[in-house]
Amino acid sequence: MGGDSAPRAEVEGAILAAREMDVRVLLVGRQDPVRHELSKHPHRGLPIEIIHASEVISMTDAPMQAFRKKRDSSVHVCAKLVHGGQADGMVSAGNTGAVMATARFTLGTLASVDRPALAAPFPTSRGTVSVMLDVGANVDSKPAHLEQFAVMGEIYYRAIFGTRRPRVALLSIGEEEMKGNELTKEAHNRLKHMQLNFVGNVEGRDVFSGAVDVIVCDGFIGNVALKISEGLVEHLVTTLKAALNSSLSSQVGYVLSRRAYQEFKKKMDYSEYGGAPLLGVRGVTVIGHGRSNANAIKNAIRVAAELSRARLNDKIDEELAAVSAAGHS
Amino acid sequence: MGGDSAPRAEVEGAILAAREMDVRVLLVGRQDPVRHELSKHPHRGLPIEIIHASEVISMTDAPMQAFRKKRDSSVHVCAKLVHGGQADGMVSAGNTGAVMATARFTLGTLASVDRPALAAPFPTSRGTVSVMLDVGANVDSKPAHLEQFAVMGEIYYRAIFGTRRPRVALLSIGEEEMKGNELTKEAHNRLKHMQLNFVGNVEGRDVFSGAVDVIVCDGFIGNVALKISEGLVEHLVTTLKAALNSSLSSQVGYVLSRRAYQEFKKKMDYSEYGGAPLLGVRGVTVIGHGRSNANAIKNAIRVAAELSRARLNDKIDEELAAVSAAGHS
Repeated sequence: MGGDSAPRAEVEGAILAAREMDVRVLLVGRQDPVRHELSKHPHRGLPIEIIHASEVISMTDAPMQAFRKKRDSSVHVCAKLVHGGQADGMVSAGNTGAVMATARFTLGTLASVDRPALAAPFPTSRGTVSVMLDVGANVDSKPAHLEQFAVMGEIYYRAIFGTRRPRVALLSIGEEEMKGNELTKEAHNRLKHMQLNFVGNVEGRDVFSGAVDVIVCDGFIGNVALKISEGLVEHLVTTLKAALNSSLSSQVGYVLSRRAYQEFKKKMDYSEYGGAPLLGVRGVTVIGHGRSNANAIKNAIRVAAELSRARLNDKIDEELAAVSAAGHS
Repeated sequence: MGGDSAPRAEVEGAILAAREMDVRVLLVGRQDPVRHELSKHPHRGLPIEIIHASEVISMTDAPMQAFRKKRDSSVHVCAKLVHGGQADGMVSAGNTGAVMATARFTLGTLASVDRPALAAPFPTSRGTVSVMLDVGANVDSKPAHLEQFAVMGEIYYRAIFGTRRPRVALLSIGEEEMKGNELTKEAHNRLKHMQLNFVGNVEGRDVFSGAVDVIVCDGFIGNVALKISEGLVEHLVTTLKAALNSSLSSQVGYVLSRRAYQEFKKKMDYSEYGGAPLLGVRGVTVIGHGRSNANAIKNAIRVAAELSRARLNDKIDEELAAVSAAGHS
């Protein structure tokens, strides 16, 4: 119920997912508006069910307060369904902080994980996706946390993108091992001794180059990186639009190249990438952008289903137990 | 001598500056190639002089080693000219780390400043410029350092952009005072008690929105922000070009909208913004992008001249002495 165009995008995305994939969808939210949206589309025979939740968390609600006070919010009910085993995973395009807090405290953290991490996909110039974590579940991370992020990110990347040995990198301010701050220097030293395809430090520039698959960083850095990228795309699109509108010739030119722009916009479109999973909680949780459209919701459902089928959390616990036994953690 | 197209861009930029502004330019570098470049352009009567420096620092040289070993590099000779009062400021498009180290150790740090900061300009959707500092002179900053960055950034912004009360903000991961990490929470608390137009926290999104003028952050964060922005612009331009080349219709469209693209590219062009000053050293130092063209060099010279005329460093010492006396530092 918390997304910018809820429950319309959520219902449409659920219908797409139920139609195209082998999933059952539980639509959790206020029964009346959800049923009303559902009635607008043919959905007979589709495995979709409505679960009533009376409360709605707004984008401006404080996360911990929303978790504590709105016990019958759609997010809270979702998390309880996952916790109770009635659902294999949850998807939300609502208040990110509230979803993270609710998932963390309702589902709990995996035994082997100190802090969950939010993993965001970035499109690259090679047509691949690079995944950055953490993009805002924690701040002031310690080296041991980044070590866990690396393992979780690798397992997630393998599960979703099918890469056997994803290239894992540490976000820093120079490629050399000695460049960086106290946190990254110590983390670099730990990562290079792990059973990972650790390719060293990367700079901000390489987030979009496709040179690496998994990019590990503290959640403050990752959140700034994510938000600055969103802001810059908006700025570029605004500037380009204004320039293209500035003369008749360029307007005609725009019409002729419209398909190219649509292709360009599609490549820039977050909705293709299926949201950001919160890794490290006991239960699959995928968080979509507040602006998620039906396609974004569908892809987030796909990611949640794939992570559940890949037994993501069992693998995280297994691999981190091995790291711990090896004495690195 | 260290820029990607040195000394061509440097010489051309110097000629433009000497022609258009009230400045004398000392071209510091290997006499023969510099003289050769200069001979390609009419420059009779222009106040341009060549100062020989035999060594060249490459982009891959380690900063401290370059400072220690290459005592006759163009950067080192520049810094000595500034230190000795024969020049009012220096401009380089060479190895940023080496320029920072050389400026810092040859010129020294201002009495009131603990750590110099590199201040980078970002274009905004409102057509203004926002300045972020530090973008990489330091890492692991303490709250007191961010306080000094705020004061230096404000004085610089006023000197270059003429804004009487620049809006100073702290880069964080949420606008509320309580959002952020240990560093930003403490820094926020200090900044709000200062004699500044402190407008609170901003998120990465606002770097390009034009909502604020000066953005304060630790150098690790700022460097990641700068590099990720450069990488994203490259990625977007590559993707857009590929899309526009994909059909005849879009190619024709591109030709018709060419002027719009040129305008767009100009707005995205770092070279309009005159490089990044290293604030807090005893002497004006402006660092250009390695890819600086003649226009970028000219604008960097303009910024250096303006900062010198505005008595930037005297003002920084005065204002920080006042902060220190007020017991905030």
